[in-house]
Amino acid sequence: MNKFLQISQRGIEMPESPIRKLAPLAYKAENRGVKIYRLNIGQPDLPTPQKALDVLKNIDRNTLEYSPSQGYCSLRQALVGYYERYQIKLKADEIIITSGGSEAVLFAFMSCLNPGDEIIIPEPAYANYMSFAISAGAVIKTVTTTIEEGFCLPKVEKFEELINDRTKAILICNPNNPTGYLYTQKEMNQIRDLVKKYNLYLFSDEVYREFIYTGSPYISAMHLDGIQENVLLIDSVSKRYSECGIRIGALITKNELIRRTVMKFCQARLSPPLLGQLVAEASIEGTEQYAREVYDEYVERRKCLVDGVNRIAGCYTPMPMGAFYTVAKLPVDDAERFCAWCLSEFSYKDDKTPDGCVGETVMMAPAAGFYSGSKLGKDQVRLAYVLKKEDLQRALFILEKALKKYKESVCVWHQ
Amino acid sequence: MNKFLQISQRGIEMPESPIRKLAPLAYKAENRGVKIYRLNIGQPDLPTPQKALDVLKNIDRNTLEYSPSQGYCSLRQALVGYYERYQIKLKADEIIITSGGSEAVLFAFMSCLNPGDEIIIPEPAYANYMSFAISAGAVIKTVTTTIEEGFCLPKVEKFEELINDRTKAILICNPNNPTGYLYTQKEMNQIRDLVKKYNLYLFSDEVYREFIYTGSPYISAMHLDGIQENVLLIDSVSKRYSECGIRIGALITKNELIRRTVMKFCQARLSPPLLGQLVAEASIEGTEQYAREVYDEYVERRKCLVDGVNRIAGCYTPMPMGAFYTVAKLPVDDAERFCAWCLSEFSYKDDKTPDGCVGETVMMAPAAGFYSGSKLGKDQVRLAYVLKKEDLQRALFILEKALKKYKESVCVWHQ
Repeated sequence: MNKFLQISQRGIEMPESPIRKLAPLAYKAENRGVKIYRLNIGQPDLPTPQKALDVLKNIDRNTLEYSPSQGYCSLRQALVGYYERYQIKLKADEIIITSGGSEAVLFAFMSCLNPGDEIIIPEPAYANYMSFAISAGAVIKTVTTTIEEGFCLPKVEKFEELINDRTKAILICNPNNPTGYLYTQKEMNQIRDLVKKYNLYLFSDEVYREFIYTGSPYISAMHLDGIQENVLLIDSVSKRYSECGIRIGALITKNELIRRTVMKFCQARLSPPLLGQLVAEASIEGTEQYAREVYDEYVERRKCLVDGVNRIAGCYTPMPMGAFYTVAKLPVDDAERFCAWCLSEFSYKDDKTPDGCVGETVMMAPAAGFYSGSKLGKDQVRLAYVLKKEDLQRALFILEKALKKYKESVCVWHQ
Repeated sequence: MNKFLQISQRGIEMPESPIRKLAPLAYKAENRGVKIYRLNIGQPDLPTPQKALDVLKNIDRNTLEYSPSQGYCSLRQALVGYYERYQIKLKADEIIITSGGSEAVLFAFMSCLNPGDEIIIPEPAYANYMSFAISAGAVIKTVTTTIEEGFCLPKVEKFEELINDRTKAILICNPNNPTGYLYTQKEMNQIRDLVKKYNLYLFSDEVYREFIYTGSPYISAMHLDGIQENVLLIDSVSKRYSECGIRIGALITKNELIRRTVMKFCQARLSPPLLGQLVAEASIEGTEQYAREVYDEYVERRKCLVDGVNRIAGCYTPMPMGAFYTVAKLPVDDAERFCAWCLSEFSYKDDKTPDGCVGETVMMAPAAGFYSGSKLGKDQVRLAYVLKKEDLQRALFILEKALKKYKESVCVWHQ
């Protein structure tokens, strides 16, 4: 009878997070006294807006009760004002508050897709889309973008080759995690035409809209004409206010039937986090100066990281236009092995190494986890520029040392 | 091509919350100036422990960052101490922090069950189990408990009639929502024997363990011998510390493979709420007096509600042994229609009606939504005793008036 006590097939298929799976090695390295520069995570080190923190300090509630399943009306109204600044016109009822952008993606998939339905996603892509697709029984099909072409959107024919009776949706992340790519008006029109022609859902993850560095316009899926019933916008306050831990996101759509369906999933989980909603609402208004300072900081960090990577022999990254990541090619055969080696076998020490540390190393996210195939992106890593400039500089210096040592000691090199 | 823009089958099948679906009628009644006594919800009106609120007031973080996907180690360690008080021996690694008990149920189903797999649940049952089962593609089979028998567990044969090759799990809620029933040692042994004989998972939702009123022992699924690899404990701090809004629950199991699988779902959603974890951790220790006061309060409210219901002609409820709900039989054919009528057509006014109100009414949860069949529980409601005693008394007085008026004006009565 033992056959019954098995885990689910989807549990077997669920990928481990490519961002987090090196964590045990990092933990051991730290226990050995090694200082780690974390280029692997999207956790900003910047402070949360003070007025948002003050909401907690001044809390005058006696009972931390359930909030409405859709989220507080006052927060949704504040978001209406926020989106207006981006020429996105919404009513508060068109916004559903979720536990982070993560839950918005899950509920979008759960509400729109049947098991076996297919979503087309340009890759490399945020790895957790795959996890949510598996949770919903949906299948991700990818169109591959390349580092050589700066991760621009592939031609429309590449999408059409994948479209069949099970194709139900396109998902984009704009500005893009992990590549930092920002879709142009022309590319967005191309997506709009595909969505219209095949009547697909368009899931658009736009959590990094604050972070666009090139002067190019931000084109939201919500700006596209003629497909407003097809669009589900995924959003989150995590990155823009440096409050990833409060778990507040949103699922936004003009399609009322979808909203009614999503609300059934929302009711089942009762309510989004109450405290996070209070913090998020306080973050939205009167934080213009905060936003400017954060933006200016990322502009500098981006330049620091991108220039620094491209200065290292054999390394290359295109200039990311938005978000706070970039994908870089390293002169190694297997970036995952190299990343693991950096944590488990390498450390560097000189007179700049902080007292009490036996050495320093870097932690990076192997990019293969952001691609679907087993061979793509094997020599690439995702690097986040969420550390202070001086730390980024030191991290790149150490990366260069690591690559040199790795070449000498362990690994087969690219020719 | 329009055929593609459909919502998912599971989205269609998802039930609306029986607890929340009368909400629009309540909203309208309040707008008319009617005061509503909410007997329908499980939102305690009691204060959250002061020392938990103080954690927010004294927060000294600058960045509200992601927490670990498994939840903070310090919170999990505090929970180890908490469970020890109930003779449940755990290691911190055996505890996974979730966004409320809701997420724990979802991840348990997602990790253990394939589409088409069956879970046996005694009914009436917490309605959202059905929602999470549909999310996971699993099928709920119910063994019916009856108000006449005080909702005790049906004989083992009733379970065995349902067991087949697709049966993968039993789910119990103990003490029970909605019935307030507390499983006896004998009943728990019966469940244990079934779980062992057929090698099933046992999902045990024990979020109400603080609220047991009869002096009978609390038997956790974790106390049962020989099935420790089979048990997944679902828990939440929401009810015991009156902090439903912080969204902190836990999934606990000794089965390492399941934990590793659940962690993949946890990594996909990044982290449980940071602020809620701080509040929860502060709630666990040094709150003995708080717990005693809350308990004493519920003892009184329970007596008040149960005695009050049974005093009304034609009404009956068995004495609930735990939690803060009871299922009551009303002298009406269709309790859902009666509950809607109370909100939309009835209100009562006398010299005790608060100034500024045009009248008063009660809101109850029709119990049919807690049963699977279309006919069961049609004359029953779930009543929560989370209001102050004087409000409960007034609510019951008004319920009696409503039943009288309903009989005179609208409805076919039971013979």
